[in-house]
Amino acid sequence: MSLIVQKFGGSSVANAESIKRVAKRIVETRKAGNEVVVAVSAMGDTTDDLLDLAHAVAPIPAPREMDMLLSAGERISMALLAMAIESLGHDARSFTGSQAGMITDARHGAARIVDVTPVRLREALDEGAIVIVAGFQGFNRDTKDITTLGRGGSDTTAVALAAALNADICEIYTDVDGIFTADPRVVPKASKIDRITSEEMLELAANGAKVLYIRAVEYARRHGVTLHVRSSFNNNEGTIVYNPSETEPAVEEPMIAGVATDLSEAKITVVGVPDIPGKAAQIFTIVAKTGANIDMIVQNVSAASTGLTDISFTLPKSEGQLVLTALRAEQEETGFKALQYDDQIGKLALVGAGMRTNAGVSAKLFTALFDAGINIEMISTSEIRISVVTRADTINDALRVVHTAFGLDADEEAVVHAGTGR
Amino acid sequence: MSLIVQKFGGSSVANAESIKRVAKRIVETRKAGNEVVVAVSAMGDTTDDLLDLAHAVAPIPAPREMDMLLSAGERISMALLAMAIESLGHDARSFTGSQAGMITDARHGAARIVDVTPVRLREALDEGAIVIVAGFQGFNRDTKDITTLGRGGSDTTAVALAAALNADICEIYTDVDGIFTADPRVVPKASKIDRITSEEMLELAANGAKVLYIRAVEYARRHGVTLHVRSSFNNNEGTIVYNPSETEPAVEEPMIAGVATDLSEAKITVVGVPDIPGKAAQIFTIVAKTGANIDMIVQNVSAASTGLTDISFTLPKSEGQLVLTALRAEQEETGFKALQYDDQIGKLALVGAGMRTNAGVSAKLFTALFDAGINIEMISTSEIRISVVTRADTINDALRVVHTAFGLDADEEAVVHAGTGR
Repeated sequence: MSLIVQKFGGSSVANAESIKRVAKRIVETRKAGNEVVVAVSAMGDTTDDLLDLAHAVAPIPAPREMDMLLSAGERISMALLAMAIESLGHDARSFTGSQAGMITDARHGAARIVDVTPVRLREALDEGAIVIVAGFQGFNRDTKDITTLGRGGSDTTAVALAAALNADICEIYTDVDGIFTADPRVVPKASKIDRITSEEMLELAANGAKVLYIRAVEYARRHGVTLHVRSSFNNNEGTIVYNPSETEPAVEEPMIAGVATDLSEAKITVVGVPDIPGKAAQIFTIVAKTGANIDMIVQNVSAASTGLTDISFTLPKSEGQLVLTALRAEQEETGFKALQYDDQIGKLALVGAGMRTNAGVSAKLFTALFDAGINIEMISTSEIRISVVTRADTINDALRVVHTAFGLDADEEAVVHAGTGR
Repeated sequence: MSLIVQKFGGSSVANAESIKRVAKRIVETRKAGNEVVVAVSAMGDTTDDLLDLAHAVAPIPAPREMDMLLSAGERISMALLAMAIESLGHDARSFTGSQAGMITDARHGAARIVDVTPVRLREALDEGAIVIVAGFQGFNRDTKDITTLGRGGSDTTAVALAAALNADICEIYTDVDGIFTADPRVVPKASKIDRITSEEMLELAANGAKVLYIRAVEYARRHGVTLHVRSSFNNNEGTIVYNPSETEPAVEEPMIAGVATDLSEAKITVVGVPDIPGKAAQIFTIVAKTGANIDMIVQNVSAASTGLTDISFTLPKSEGQLVLTALRAEQEETGFKALQYDDQIGKLALVGAGMRTNAGVSAKLFTALFDAGINIEMISTSEIRISVVTRADTINDALRVVHTAFGLDADEEAVVHAGTGR
């Protein structure tokens, strides 16, 4: 008997009809002879509605109470889902994050899982029940308080349960057919990826692919959980995200997995930095203190005549003002001339195995962009990724030409559904 | 320093504005130097909305999951209330029924409190925080499952907390100014009762007064908790429901506390019962097996010529068909001739101390009704109550004439708000 963990996002359980549809799907998996554990998000707009209420009663809602409030969302969806399954004649039991043994640290709103003790889930499974768990939420042992895991928390819940219960697979149900070689809303001929390593998936997610959250993929990679990202609207096979065994032969030829784009970042350029040892360290120490998530860093070649250089880096737009303020406060001590802030950039990342060792990949990427008249402003590479920064308004063109240049276009156009999850 | 428990029902926290208003009121009590524990119901229509969802996904929702679902309602209101208080600059912490130590039996949907262990509440109070507790919900130690207390559960939560924390008073906030001598919607000159014993309050509640639930009053009486029923819309003194000390002198003159009416009952008459010993016992054994809540019982004088008698009793309309079916199934064995079912009855109860020992009270009651042309169909008395059954369509007239006859009319008309709580 296999143990399957299934995750359904908010758009899959948006109303009573959707919940009944998902219940049928879960029962089919059980009938096929599997043990089933389900992680479920709050229904559709519930979380947004609760956030609106919170801000209507308090300008800055207390974080502990915010978590208490938001955790009501999954409580509703999981109880309804369990009821719907029971009315189909199968035993089902819902469990809160705390009941499921999802132990976290005490950071309200962005808690990290520190332990999973699914004793009650294992008992319920042994008694033949289908287990429904509230996604997104946990429990801190010291404060005894409810916590939430932040963005993508339900994905992380599912993966953590799969790891703790030693599940055979963790199915992430979503409103698209799987992971695509590019965003199908921009590149209609994007093709579904059948198999991708967790490392490549991590790069795609970190570079703007929205289907899976980075934290969930990281957790899956660290704990050896295999993911199956698939649609809740059909029975098609989706995308398997796997951890290659160490004995698997290394890739000789570059294998492009996909292309991701991201418009959520901004670029800060520190202009006229004295080109003496330790200056870059000084600047990034200031930035690090703000807690900002720096992505790409480029240092220009110093002009010999001035002894000054420019340092550029990208970071989420939401953190831009914070970092600018921190740098300005230390301008005199650091000795730079000026700061430039540019929030009209787009980032494109080409992800796949064997990339760095094959110079032809970069050449083909740069040529495709040049032929399309798209200017490259920054470049960064890793073992399995090449990222470039362009103007924001050219990013979709860039995505299409790169997708075509690397032979990723499918014969038919992909079907796209709308929706978001948490 | 006094410890005050305050209960706010669903209509008092129906939206963000109401929640902010209630938060201010709670903070005022804290600022006056009191420790404050608040029991809160779900916002306005939340419970009805959740019930609708449950019935949309499952024809007969599983009771365990129903409790899990409904308990989300107070989780939302209590977190919002705590946020609103914190934004007024006071430390506040919300606790679920389980966190508050509200231990119940395992009867989902109608759980009984078996123990209250408010360790975390006492800690939070000692740290200077205002404590907000989810009304209506508890936790079963054996199954480790969430339970709900059923109708009036939030009142019961408040009273149980007041008893366990040895509170000085338990304030029940509602949308009326207190307990009235009669329903002000029917008797505009009904007057607010300043003080009433818990025993009298119990009779009023049991006979149709909707402001307080019987279970909460019973709990308060058993544990010696003093209640203060008052409006959340003004600062007027409401009604004190107290437990008279044993040394208090017995009442000599009848003191009428109030008049309650109830249209929720029906009358079943078992016609032509053989007038031999044991027949009544046989009939009520059948009725008892259905679990129905029998109220008034009247056995007619037997007609000597036939050796047959009629037995009538009242019970909630919702239990009528169940009891009729049970009686019909045993008709042959019991030997009665027929069953009559009458759901067009109204019940009026006059409540007050020293009632039975003063024959003048019954005489005045019957005379008032006779003068108004209202026929009495059944009569039942207790130490502090006289109840009569009339036609349903005469009950409001009956209420008004009795209220006037016993000198209960106030000089001014009462102000009435609409709304319900749970």
